[in-house]
Amino acid sequence: MQAKTVAQSRTEMTELVLPSDSNQLGKLFGGRLMHWMDLAAAITANRHAGNVSVTASIDRLEFFHAIQVGEVVHLIAQINWVGRTSMEVGVDVYGENMDTGERRQTSTAFLTFVALNPSGEPVEVPPLALSSPDEEERFRAAETRRQDRLKSRQKA
Amino acid sequence: MQAKTVAQSRTEMTELVLPSDSNQLGKLFGGRLMHWMDLAAAITANRHAGNVSVTASIDRLEFFHAIQVGEVVHLIAQINWVGRTSMEVGVDVYGENMDTGERRQTSTAFLTFVALNPSGEPVEVPPLALSSPDEEERFRAAETRRQDRLKSRQKA
Amino acid sequence: MQAKTVAQSRTEMTELVLPSDSNQLGKLFGGRLMHWMDLAAAITANRHAGNVSVTASIDRLEFFHAIQVGEVVHLIAQINWVGRTSMEVGVDVYGENMDTGERRQTSTAFLTFVALNPSGEPVEVPPLALSSPDEEERFRAAETRRQDRLKSRQKA
Amino acid sequence: MQAKTVAQSRTEMTELVLPSDSNQLGKLFGGRLMHWMDLAAAITANRHAGNVSVTASIDRLEFFHAIQVGEVVHLIAQINWVGRTSMEVGVDVYGENMDTGERRQTSTAFLTFVALNPSGEPVEVPPLALSSPDEEERFRAAETRRQDRLKSRQKA
Amino acid sequence: MQAKTVAQSRTEMTELVLPSDSNQLGKLFGGRLMHWMDLAAAITANRHAGNVSVTASIDRLEFFHAIQVGEVVHLIAQINWVGRTSMEVGVDVYGENMDTGERRQTSTAFLTFVALNPSGEPVEVPPLALSSPDEEERFRAAETRRQDRLKSRQKA
Amino acid sequence: MQAKTVAQSRTEMTELVLPSDSNQLGKLFGGRLMHWMDLAAAITANRHAGNVSVTASIDRLEFFHAIQVGEVVHLIAQINWVGRTSMEVGVDVYGENMDTGERRQTSTAFLTFVALNPSGEPVEVPPLALSSPDEEERFRAAETRRQDRLKSRQKA
Repeated sequence: MQAKTVAQSRTEMTELVLPSDSNQLGKLFGGRLMHWMDLAAAITANRHAGNVSVTASIDRLEFFHAIQVGEVVHLIAQINWVGRTSMEVGVDVYGENMDTGERRQTSTAFLTFVALNPSGEPVEVPPLALSSPDEEERFRAAETRRQDRLKSRQKA
Repeated sequence: MQAKTVAQSRTEMTELVLPSDSNQLGKLFGGRLMHWMDLAAAITANRHAGNVSVTASIDRLEFFHAIQVGEVVHLIAQINWVGRTSMEVGVDVYGENMDTGERRQTSTAFLTFVALNPSGEPVEVPPLALSSPDEEERFRAAETRRQDRLKSRQKA
Repeated sequence: MQAKTVAQSRTEMTELVLPSDSNQLGKLFGGRLMHWMDLAAAITANRHAGNVSVTASIDRLEFFHAIQVGEVVHLIAQINWVGRTSMEVGVDVYGENMDTGERRQTSTAFLTFVALNPSGEPVEVPPLALSSPDEEERFRAAETRRQDRLKSRQKA
Repeated sequence: MQAKTVAQSRTEMTELVLPSDSNQLGKLFGGRLMHWMDLAAAITANRHAGNVSVTASIDRLEFFHAIQVGEVVHLIAQINWVGRTSMEVGVDVYGENMDTGERRQTSTAFLTFVALNPSGEPVEVPPLALSSPDEEERFRAAETRRQDRLKSRQKA
Repeated sequence: MQAKTVAQSRTEMTELVLPSDSNQLGKLFGGRLMHWMDLAAAITANRHAGNVSVTASIDRLEFFHAIQVGEVVHLIAQINWVGRTSMEVGVDVYGENMDTGERRQTSTAFLTFVALNPSGEPVEVPPLALSSPDEEERFRAAETRRQDRLKSRQKA
Repeated sequence: MQAKTVAQSRTEMTELVLPSDSNQLGKLFGGRLMHWMDLAAAITANRHAGNVSVTASIDRLEFFHAIQVGEVVHLIAQINWVGRTSMEVGVDVYGENMDTGERRQTSTAFLTFVALNPSGEPVEVPPLALSSPDEEERFRAAETRRQDRLKSRQKA
């Protein structure tokens, strides 16, 4: 199976926060943002795998700042790591004030996906062709998270 | 501030998976389930704090099994741990076949919330009155997750 | 066919009222609440029947109080009465202020469902094992409503 | 206050049943239809009252036939009866096959609304100018339903 | 194939603008209105063709005035012109203040649809029986728009 | 007022077509796609103007191909032309099969927006700094569309 680069499956999503996305404080509802993060990551995983891919776990998701109604949400998802049938996708979220152009990171998460064949069984994914020190660093960090996860499962 | 028990803020949610909740495989879409998990946990946090509470992070979210259109999703959220202004809520998700009554756990997650006063600033939450060995064990496990989280942030 | 108790199919639903559920007055829109009441009742009917069950009629639905955005809606649905292929489900709705814990009943309704086999034809439902004076009283009241309904149809 | 005719507030709604409106059987979900019925009736009540009007109760709602995805739902709402601050609205629902033009009644309901002034208190509604024997008959039938409702409340 | 009149496929839709339909200014979001215009026109085209019909193009869509949350949107769609497998549908949109009954046109559009057989291939549509000078004028104007469209495509 | 480049307001949106976005044929519903096109264009207009911008008209919107459930929709919106208070935004839509990476243009449209100040009145927008022959060509074509539009209004 031929390797694919990180750039080949990178996904950019842009959403406008409307009143129907808001919580009782007039800010973007957390559950809606998670929905968008999962969507962006699922598209990245599917693009890399060439097969439908489903969320297996979320390793760490952080919300740094609230996002207001009327702001733009910008999501960038990219493959950090691949195993035999699973992949880690990192998602970075930015809130943008469209009037001033000001933009800041509001959230980050690591999601693990499993690729499925049409019968719904796990299927091998292409290797990842790393092409920059940043991509290599992300791969190593994902590998560490995976080891920690396996260890903490053995303890449990 | 008077302590509250775990039972006082425990939240049970029940949802029927309709076609509008499904992914292209006819199963419950991951992002929609996250939305429901966040909702159930937010209600629990708000009930304990007596103040609106917003999601600060998700520590580990796992999907064990897919849920089909036409199944019932049952979510149970309860406070595991409280700090000064933050709380950890555990959410357990079960899929139920309504025809047979068969039911199995499909997902679990730990979410951290921060309570806010009406001006949007963090506000103290009531202490947690633990009333069973299971609740004490959950408190200790949440404390450990919190220490791990603080450590991994120092490394980063 | 083996009888089932009321408890076996009892359904509890919890929903947070978000701005997307509101009418132009910032209160929960009536049509959205009906949607939730129908969902809770449909799950109860399906659980009792062990078959998909569809709404045949609503006998009396009352709204006592409005529910605000930011409040929690708590719905409890339980079987009141069963016939050969039909069932009456009662739904009670409560609005809860999460900050104070205050809670009051805001709505009630009686819905009749018919159980369907996979070809969409009415199918027999299990008998109802009544286990308390309250459940017996509910059964009798439902029987009366049914007689009234049949009479008013003959008149029409 | 000047009387208004039935025609002045009559409301026609048309909706196409999309997959996002369907239950697990590929038919229009009951809760969604109730939502549309409530909307059509609320518009009629508001048009007659000249004030926002909220649902107080539903007297009898019947589903005769299922509606398929891809069919058109046609709703007609009209004022049957007015009191001092309340109104009864009748809603008739028709399912239409757009390819053949075939159309049949699938549902009917009687909803009672209360008109509210901008502070949310009940406010008087204009008298109803009846202009046909059919409208007079509907008025009488609504009056009877109201008497029955008051009697059954006294019993309870 | 037998001709159909304009009246036979004319479609009236009525929608209440809820907060979930609003943009960050508390007005009806343009994209939501387009969705409703497309729905009304698709029903008209399908009714005329007796076959599912899909949007091929929108020729000119104009928004004259904003619509507020709490107003009613009234859409009227009717066939202007038919070709062999395609049809032009005109949609007029009115905003109505339910309290005063005031009503003004807020939008207009011309949409072209193609009728499809069950295998998804274009299929012939019935001729249009014009029955008034206004309908004849609409037919001619649609024919002119079509010629302009073909010319501007040749230029491109 | 300082000129802005086309690149400064260019918007990329990515959406996964879920069953809740589909019509009765299992394809992306036209009205939903229009909603996304309007969103992408509104973000671009707002970014350029530095003020909320509302849709004034759509000049020509074409659908070349249907998009399936499970495909990705990729939208690219950019400023073609600016006047004193209005802007033309072009939107190109691509459908992508995530498994094969195949991608083709499925739709295109030209939308005109007006920038509004906080009181809702039209407000001047920055000039457009054109930086390539392609951008100059787009500007000229938009100018021609505008002249045609003004002429056809005089005729009407």
